[in-house]
Amino acid sequence: MYFYERFCQWLGHLKLSRVILLVSVILFVVPLFTHYYLSKYESTLGSYGSNPMRHTLEALGDLSTMNVADLRVRIEEMLRIKASVSTELRELEARRARLQREAASASAKADSAKAEHARAASELQRLRVSADQARIAQLEAIRRDSPELAPPVQILPSRPPPILPPLNPASEIHCRMFSCFDHSRCSLTSGFPVYLYDPDVHAPLASAEVDGFLKTTLRQTLGYNTHLTRDPNEACIYLVLVGEAFPFVKSPSSTTELYKLLLNETALKSLPFWGGDGRNHVLVNLARRELSVGSGDAFRGVSTGRAIIAQSTFTHDQFRAGFDIVTPPALGPPGGDVWADCAPISPARRKYLLSFQGSQPPAKGPDKDQDKTLIEYLQKTVTSPDTFLLQFECDPPVEKRALLPIGDWALCGTDRSRRAVLRDSTFVLILAPADRMYTTTALLQARLYEALRSGAIPVIMGGDRIRLPFDEVLDWKRAVISLPKARVTELHFLLRAMSDADLLVFRRQGRVLWERYLSSVQASVDSLLATIRTRLNIPARPAAPTMGAPAFNESYFPPKLEPPAVDTEPEETLGPLEAPYPSPAYRRNYSMGLLHGYELWNDWFEPFTLYPQLPWDPSVTSEAKFLGSAAGFRPIGAGAGGSGKEFSEALGGDRPREQFTIVILTYEREAVLAAALARLRGLPYLNKVVVVWNGPSSPSSAASWPESGAPVAVVRAARNSLNNRFLPYHLIDTEAVLCVDDDAHLRHDEIVFAFRVWREHRDRIVGFPGRYHAWDLNFNNGFLYNSNYSCELSMVLTGAAFVHRYYLWAYWRVLPAAVRDHVDEHMNCEDIAMNFLVAHITRKPPVKVTSRWTFRCPGCPVTLSADETHFHERHKCIQFFSQVMGYTPLLSTQYRADSVLFKTRIPHDKQKCFKFI
Amino acid sequence: MYFYERFCQWLGHLKLSRVILLVSVILFVVPLFTHYYLSKYESTLGSYGSNPMRHTLEALGDLSTMNVADLRVRIEEMLRIKASVSTELRELEARRARLQREAASASAKADSAKAEHARAASELQRLRVSADQARIAQLEAIRRDSPELAPPVQILPSRPPPILPPLNPASEIHCRMFSCFDHSRCSLTSGFPVYLYDPDVHAPLASAEVDGFLKTTLRQTLGYNTHLTRDPNEACIYLVLVGEAFPFVKSPSSTTELYKLLLNETALKSLPFWGGDGRNHVLVNLARRELSVGSGDAFRGVSTGRAIIAQSTFTHDQFRAGFDIVTPPALGPPGGDVWADCAPISPARRKYLLSFQGSQPPAKGPDKDQDKTLIEYLQKTVTSPDTFLLQFECDPPVEKRALLPIGDWALCGTDRSRRAVLRDSTFVLILAPADRMYTTTALLQARLYEALRSGAIPVIMGGDRIRLPFDEVLDWKRAVISLPKARVTELHFLLRAMSDADLLVFRRQGRVLWERYLSSVQASVDSLLATIRTRLNIPARPAAPTMGAPAFNESYFPPKLEPPAVDTEPEETLGPLEAPYPSPAYRRNYSMGLLHGYELWNDWFEPFTLYPQLPWDPSVTSEAKFLGSAAGFRPIGAGAGGSGKEFSEALGGDRPREQFTIVILTYEREAVLAAALARLRGLPYLNKVVVVWNGPSSPSSAASWPESGAPVAVVRAARNSLNNRFLPYHLIDTEAVLCVDDDAHLRHDEIVFAFRVWREHRDRIVGFPGRYHAWDLNFNNGFLYNSNYSCELSMVLTGAAFVHRYYLWAYWRVLPAAVRDHVDEHMNCEDIAMNFLVAHITRKPPVKVTSRWTFRCPGCPVTLSADETHFHERHKCIQFFSQVMGYTPLLSTQYRADSVLFKTRIPHDKQKCFKFI
Repeated sequence: MYFYERFCQWLGHLKLSRVILLVSVILFVVPLFTHYYLSKYESTLGSYGSNPMRHTLEALGDLSTMNVADLRVRIEEMLRIKASVSTELRELEARRARLQREAASASAKADSAKAEHARAASELQRLRVSADQARIAQLEAIRRDSPELAPPVQILPSRPPPILPPLNPASEIHCRMFSCFDHSRCSLTSGFPVYLYDPDVHAPLASAEVDGFLKTTLRQTLGYNTHLTRDPNEACIYLVLVGEAFPFVKSPSSTTELYKLLLNETALKSLPFWGGDGRNHVLVNLARRELSVGSGDAFRGVSTGRAIIAQSTFTHDQFRAGFDIVTPPALGPPGGDVWADCAPISPARRKYLLSFQGSQPPAKGPDKDQDKTLIEYLQKTVTSPDTFLLQFECDPPVEKRALLPIGDWALCGTDRSRRAVLRDSTFVLILAPADRMYTTTALLQARLYEALRSGAIPVIMGGDRIRLPFDEVLDWKRAVISLPKARVTELHFLLRAMSDADLLVFRRQGRVLWERYLSSVQASVDSLLATIRTRLNIPARPAAPTMGAPAFNESYFPPKLEPPAVDTEPEETLGPLEAPYPSPAYRRNYSMGLLHGYELWNDWFEPFTLYPQLPWDPSVTSEAKFLGSAAGFRPIGAGAGGSGKEFSEALGGDRPREQFTIVILTYEREAVLAAALARLRGLPYLNKVVVVWNGPSSPSSAASWPESGAPVAVVRAARNSLNNRFLPYHLIDTEAVLCVDDDAHLRHDEIVFAFRVWREHRDRIVGFPGRYHAWDLNFNNGFLYNSNYSCELSMVLTGAAFVHRYYLWAYWRVLPAAVRDHVDEHMNCEDIAMNFLVAHITRKPPVKVTSRWTFRCPGCPVTLSADETHFHERHKCIQFFSQVMGYTPLLSTQYRADSVLFKTRIPHDKQKCFKFI
Repeated sequence: MYFYERFCQWLGHLKLSRVILLVSVILFVVPLFTHYYLSKYESTLGSYGSNPMRHTLEALGDLSTMNVADLRVRIEEMLRIKASVSTELRELEARRARLQREAASASAKADSAKAEHARAASELQRLRVSADQARIAQLEAIRRDSPELAPPVQILPSRPPPILPPLNPASEIHCRMFSCFDHSRCSLTSGFPVYLYDPDVHAPLASAEVDGFLKTTLRQTLGYNTHLTRDPNEACIYLVLVGEAFPFVKSPSSTTELYKLLLNETALKSLPFWGGDGRNHVLVNLARRELSVGSGDAFRGVSTGRAIIAQSTFTHDQFRAGFDIVTPPALGPPGGDVWADCAPISPARRKYLLSFQGSQPPAKGPDKDQDKTLIEYLQKTVTSPDTFLLQFECDPPVEKRALLPIGDWALCGTDRSRRAVLRDSTFVLILAPADRMYTTTALLQARLYEALRSGAIPVIMGGDRIRLPFDEVLDWKRAVISLPKARVTELHFLLRAMSDADLLVFRRQGRVLWERYLSSVQASVDSLLATIRTRLNIPARPAAPTMGAPAFNESYFPPKLEPPAVDTEPEETLGPLEAPYPSPAYRRNYSMGLLHGYELWNDWFEPFTLYPQLPWDPSVTSEAKFLGSAAGFRPIGAGAGGSGKEFSEALGGDRPREQFTIVILTYEREAVLAAALARLRGLPYLNKVVVVWNGPSSPSSAASWPESGAPVAVVRAARNSLNNRFLPYHLIDTEAVLCVDDDAHLRHDEIVFAFRVWREHRDRIVGFPGRYHAWDLNFNNGFLYNSNYSCELSMVLTGAAFVHRYYLWAYWRVLPAAVRDHVDEHMNCEDIAMNFLVAHITRKPPVKVTSRWTFRCPGCPVTLSADETHFHERHKCIQFFSQVMGYTPLLSTQYRADSVLFKTRIPHDKQKCFKFI
C-alpha cells in the first residue's frame, strides 16, 4: 500500500492539466511503441516464412528476372505453405490459451494459499500477543503480595450509647469533634448509619408545634437517604428535628430571652438515646415559617450537651466551628426538580446592576451607625449611569418588631414580587444584620436562597463575619461576593470590574450549589448528613447498579452460531485477546474524599454517593510504572515506545490495562443484532457485550446467536425507553462503556483507536458521529440541532461513542428528571441529553475520533435527515434541555483525533500505528 | 483533486496483486488494440494508394493476366507516388509539430492567466473577509457602552495610623478582620503595601535576642517581595519580627507562665505606628532554634491589641480563626532552590509502611491515658506483615523538660538520622501533643516540615484538633492524612487501603506545598503575606514583563523589502487579515482570587503574582455569545456553523477573537531569518513577530528585512541562552505565543489550524514535532529521550509550538533555577524543560497537531539525530530535570489533532475545513 500512498501523494501535487497531459502522452506513446515493435516482430516472423504475403513480396524482389510460369508455381507453393502455417498458428494459439488458463488458475491458487498463510500468521501473532499478555497478567497475579481487597464488612455498634455524666454547660462552648463526638459509633466501614427520632413521637421538644409539612417531609426525604437506619442501636448519629424557633420577644432590650422559652430542655435530655450528654446527636432547626419577620436561634440559653446544632441563625460566640453546621432555611419543595423556579443564566448583565429591597428597625448600638453611612453612600451611588434598584424601606411597610434586637433586614413584598426584581438583577445586595454578634441569621439565609434561585449574584456587605451554609465543604467564594462593610466605597468599582464571563461563572456556580445543596428539604438534609460524613471521612454508600432482568431464564441460553465469514477487512493485529478483566472497583473509598473532597462538592456536585470509579481518578507518575507500581501497566515496547507491532500489542499510556463493555440498545431486530454481534468477533479489549432488549416481547428463544468472542448478556428493559441505554447495569464491569446502536457499523480498528483516545479523556464523550448546535439566526431565541458537514462540533452522538461508566449513574442522579421525561415522551434525544450532562459537569467539548472513509452509520440520524419532524424534535430537545439546565452547557471543538502517523510519510522500514486510520 | 481522492481510495481497497494484474492487462490490451487499429488504418491508407507496397500486392491480384512490362511501368509509377507521398507526409508532420507547439504555449498562457485570476480572486475574498471583520470590530467598539478600563490608580493612605484608644484586653480574643482590621489603609487598588519594622532598630521586643540569621534573612527575602514599601505612611500592614520564643519554665505546673516573660509588651506598644491598638500589625514569631526541646508561643498573657499573630504554636482559645495565622517553622534556607533536600516521589511504597520516632514526657492529665492506649495499640500492630518502625523513646534519650506541660513529642536524633528514616517511610506518624488545648505546636510543625521534605506522607493522629500552616488557603487534605486519636484501631486498615496512585498524589502534593509555601524563609514569609492579601481579596502585584533591549536604536529601522515571490502554495483563504489586536489583559484582577483562589494555591501553585491572563480563564456560556455578550466573538457562519468558506472566515469556538505572537529565536543567521519572515507574509491572526536575537553581535543594520505583513520587533538578548526563547517580553501582547525556530518551515494552514486547536487547549503545548521519553530498559534507572517514529508521544518541541504566555513567566518562577542553569550549561533542552513545566502544572500531555506530508523541520533535532552527543545530552536533561522535580511529570498521548473533515469523503457541493490538512 505504501507505493500507492506515495503515488497518490505525488498525484496530489500535480496540477490537473499536467496530469492529463502526462496520461495522454503515455497513452499516445505506448501504443506507438507497441505498434513499432509488433510490426518489427511480424516482419521477423515474415522472414522465417510463416507469413505468405511477405514471402510473396520478397518474391517480387527479382520479379523482372523470372518468367510467369515459374512465378505461378512458386505462388502455388507459397499458398500451400500459407495454409500449413495457418494451421500451425491456430494450434499454437490454442496451446497458448490453454497455457494461459493454467497459469491463471495456478496463480489464483498461489494467491489464496498466500492469503491463507497471511491470515494464519496474523492469527498466530495475535494468539502469541494474547499469550504473552496472559502470562504477564498471571505473573502479576502471583506477585501481588496482598490479596484482592473486598469492600470491608460494616462494623456497627450494637448497643445504644451508654449513659455518661452530662457535660458541664460551661464546657459546651468548647465542644469540637475530638472532644464531644463519639467516634466509636462511626467506624470507617460503618456506612454512617443515621437514626431519626420520629418527629411525631418526640415532637414536643419545643413549645411551638413543629411545622406539619416539615415533619412529613423530613421523614419522607430521609427515607430516600441511604444512610437512614431504623435500628437506633447501630446508629452513628441521631437526628432530632426540634420545632422551628419563633421570634418571641419578651423584652425588646434583651436578646437573651428572645427564643429561650421555645425549646424544652427536659424533653431534649430525656430522648431515649441521649446518653446523658447528647453525644452524636444533631439538633436540626429548619427555618421555614414567618421568615418575613425573622426566624431564629432555638438554642440560646439552652444546654444542649455534646449535641451538634444545625440551624440558620448563630452568633459568633455560640457557633462552634467544625462542629455546628449552618443550614439553609427550608423554603423549597420537599424534593424533586426545582429548575422551573430558576431564571436562565444568560444574559450576563441584567436590567439592574445591583438591587436591594429591605427594611431595618431604627438604629441602636455602635454598628448601626456604620449601616447608616453605608446606606447613605449607596444612595449616592445610584446617580451613576448604571442602573440600581435600592429600597431601604419596604413599600408597603412590614412588621419588623422581632428584628429589633438583631438589626436584621426584613424582606419586602411577596415571594413573587421579590423574585421579579431578583430576576432582573445582576447583583443583589445582602446586608449583614447590624448586631455584629450574629454570624448568620435565617433572614440573611433566606435572602441568599432567593438570590441564588433567581440568579442574582449575592453581594454580602459585612460578609467577612457571615457564615454561609455548609461552608465547611462548599467554596462560596465562587458564587458569592463577600465584602467588609468598610468597602462600600469600592463596591461599585468592584462590580463594574467583573467581566461577562466571570458573571456567568458566578451565576452558574450559585445556581448549581443552590440546586444540589439548598433548594429542597431533601437537598439540604442530604447535604447536612454528607457534611458530617465528609468531616468523619466515612465513604458514602456505594451507588446501586441497576439489576437488569435477564432476557433468558437461567437454564436457557440460545445456541451459539459460528458467525458467517464476514467480508474480512485486511487482517491487522489490534491487540491481544485476553480473558475478561473487570476494572478495579472501590479502590479509593478512603482517599477520594481527601484528594477530591473539594471537587466532589464544588465541581462534580455529587458528594452523596460512592462510585466504583470516577473519570478523574489519578494515575501513577511516569516512572512509578517502572519502579514498583508496574502491576497492570502495559507500556508500549515494554517502555521503549514504538509504532506498528509494538504499539498494537500494548495499550500503553498512563493508565493500567483495562477493557471496555459494549452496550447495544436494540428494538426487536434480531437479524440486525445478530449481524452486530458477529461483527464483534475478535475485537481486542472487549470485556462483555450487554444487549439492552427494548422490545415489548422477549427475544425469540429459538433464534441462534452468533459467537462474538466475548460474553454476551441480554437484559430485558422494563419498558421501551431510550433512557435504558444509560442504565448503570450491574453487568457492566469496566469503566469504559462503548454505546452503540445495533446498526452502527464500526470497524475494529476504529473501536480500538477510540478506546485508546478515551483512555486519555476519560471524562469526555469520545466517539464518531459529530453534531453541533447552531444559533437560530431567524428567531434569535435559541439553538437548533444541526447534522450538516461542519468543522466545529459540540456533540458526539452516543450511537457510537465511549463514555465513562460514572456518567450512566450521573444521567439518573445529576440530570433533572424533566430531561429524561422529555426523552421518553418524544422517544428521541437521549444522546443530546448525555452530551448536555457531560458538558455540564466537565465544561469540556466531546472528542470526535477518526472515521475511515467508508464509515457508514445507517442507523444514525443521517438516514432520518429527510424527516423534518425528527429534526424539529431535536431542535426542541436542545431548547428544552437548555431551559431545564438554565444554559446550554455544550462547548465546541474544531479538531478530530487521528492516530499519530495517519497519512504521514514514513520510511519504508517503519510501521504506522494502524494500517488504515 | 476530488477525482484523485476517489481514485486513491478505490486504489486503496484493491489488493496489490489485483492491481498489478489489472495494470498488466491494460498494458497488454491497449497496445494490441492500438496495433490492430493502426494496422487497419495503414491498410485503409494503403487502399488510398499512399502505401506502395500494398499497392503492389494488389497489383498481384491479376498477375496472371498482365505482362511483365506493364508490371514494371506500374511499379515505377508506384515508386514515384510513394516518394511524393513521403514528402507530403514529412511536411504534414512538420506542420503538426508547429501547431502543437503553438497550442502548448497558448495553453500555458491560459493557465497562468487563470492562476493569476484565482490569486486575485482569493486576495479579493480575503480582503473582503478582513473588511467584514474590521467592520464588526468597529461596531463593537462603538457599541461598547463602557470605556476601556485602565487598571485603577493605586489608592494609598498618606498618613500613619491615627492613635486610637487601646482595645480592652478581654476583647482581644474576639478580634476578627471585621472588628480589628482597618480596611481603610488597604484599598483594593492599593497593591497591598507592607512595611517591615527594621529588626535591628526595633529588636528588643523580647528578652531573648532575635536570631541573627532570621533578622538578616527576613530583611533580605522581603526585599524580593514586591509588596514591601519603605514608606510607613502608605502601608497597609506592618510586619513586626518578634524574637523567637524560648521555652522558659517558671513552674512546671503552670503553662501560663511558660513564655510570658519573653515579650516586652511596652516595647511593642511603643512601636512608632502602633496607633494605640496595633491595628494592621502582624507579629511574626518564627520558630527556628532549639526545636529539639520545643519552641513556642511568644504571646501568652501578653496584650497584643488588634495585631494579628503569626507563629507555629497556638492554643485553641488563643487562636482567632480567620485572623491569626499558623506559620511553619523557619527550618530551611533563606531562599532559592530546595529540591536537593527532597526525596524522589517514586517508588510509591517505601521500606517502612509507617514510622515514628519520638519521646514524650511522663503521663499526666486525662489525655495522656489516651496516648498510652494509642501507643499500646500501635505497638501491637507492629507484628503485622507490613514493616513498621515505631520508637516511642529516643535513643539516645533527649531533653524534654520543656515539653512537660504540653505533652509534646520531642524529636529524636539528628536532622540527618531523621531524614534517613523519613526517606524510607511511606507514611510517618505525627502525634498531636497530649495537652488538648494546643491546636498546633512548633514541634509538630517541625515534624510536618521534615516529613513533607522527605516525601513521607504525614499521618496526624489527633489531627482533628490540629491546624496546619496557612490552612485558610491550602487544602491540606490532599497532602496529609488527619485522624482523630480514636481511630488508631483503623489506622493500619486505612493506610493499607490506599492505592499506589493515591500515595503518589499525596506525596507530590505534599512536596509541592512544601516547596512553594514552607521550604525556605522566603517561601513562608511570601505565603504569610499572600494569605493576608487573599483574605482581603486585594490582587497581587502584576508580573513584570522582561523589557527586551531593542536590537536597533529608535531612529533606525532596517528598510523593508518586498519579499521574493515564494513558490506559492495553492491559494487558500485561512482567515481575515486584521489590524493587530492585543489580548485583553488584567480583566480578572478582582475575580481571579474568588473564582480560582483554590486552584491558585493548590493546583497552580502561583498565588504570589497577578498575571494579565491565565490559561484557565473561563469563557462565556454558549448562548451568552448571542445574548448580550457578543462582543469579540466571531461565531462560524454567524452562529449557523459550517465548513469551507464560513469556517475559514471566523475563528469560532467558545473564545472571543484573538491573535497570536510569533517568537523566533535566532542566532546570527540573517538569511535564514529573512526567509522565515518572508514566509509569514499574509498569515492571518498574526499579531506581531518578536525576533530574539541571541548572537553576540547586533544584526547588521545594513541588511534589509522582508515585509512579513505584521510588526516585527527585534530584541537583543543580554547573553546567548536558549532560555531567552521563553522570556516574557513586554512586546508580547497576546495570550497565544507561537515559538518557532528560525529554520522551521511551517505552512500557513498548519499554523492557523494549530492556533485553533490551541484555543481549545490553552493550558497545553500545542504544536508539531512530537517526541517521547522511553524507559531505559538496559539500565532501568530512568528515561531516555526518543525521537523515533512513535504512536505515543509525551513532548511537543517548542521549535514549532503554541504555548500560553503565562508559561513564559512560569518558566522563570515555577521551575527551579537548576533546570534553567542546566539548559544554559549544555546549550540544549529548553524545549524539554518547557514540556516538564507544563506537564507538571497541568498533569496533561501536550497536543500534537497535523503535519502535512511535506512537513520538514530542518532545524529540528532530526538533522541532529546522527549526532550521538546531542542525544546523550538530551537523555541527561530528562534525567536531571526528573531529579530536580522529584518525578517525571510527562504524560503520554496517542493521538494527533487533524481538522474535522481531513481525508473524509464528502459530497461534491460541500467544502472541507482546510484544503490540505
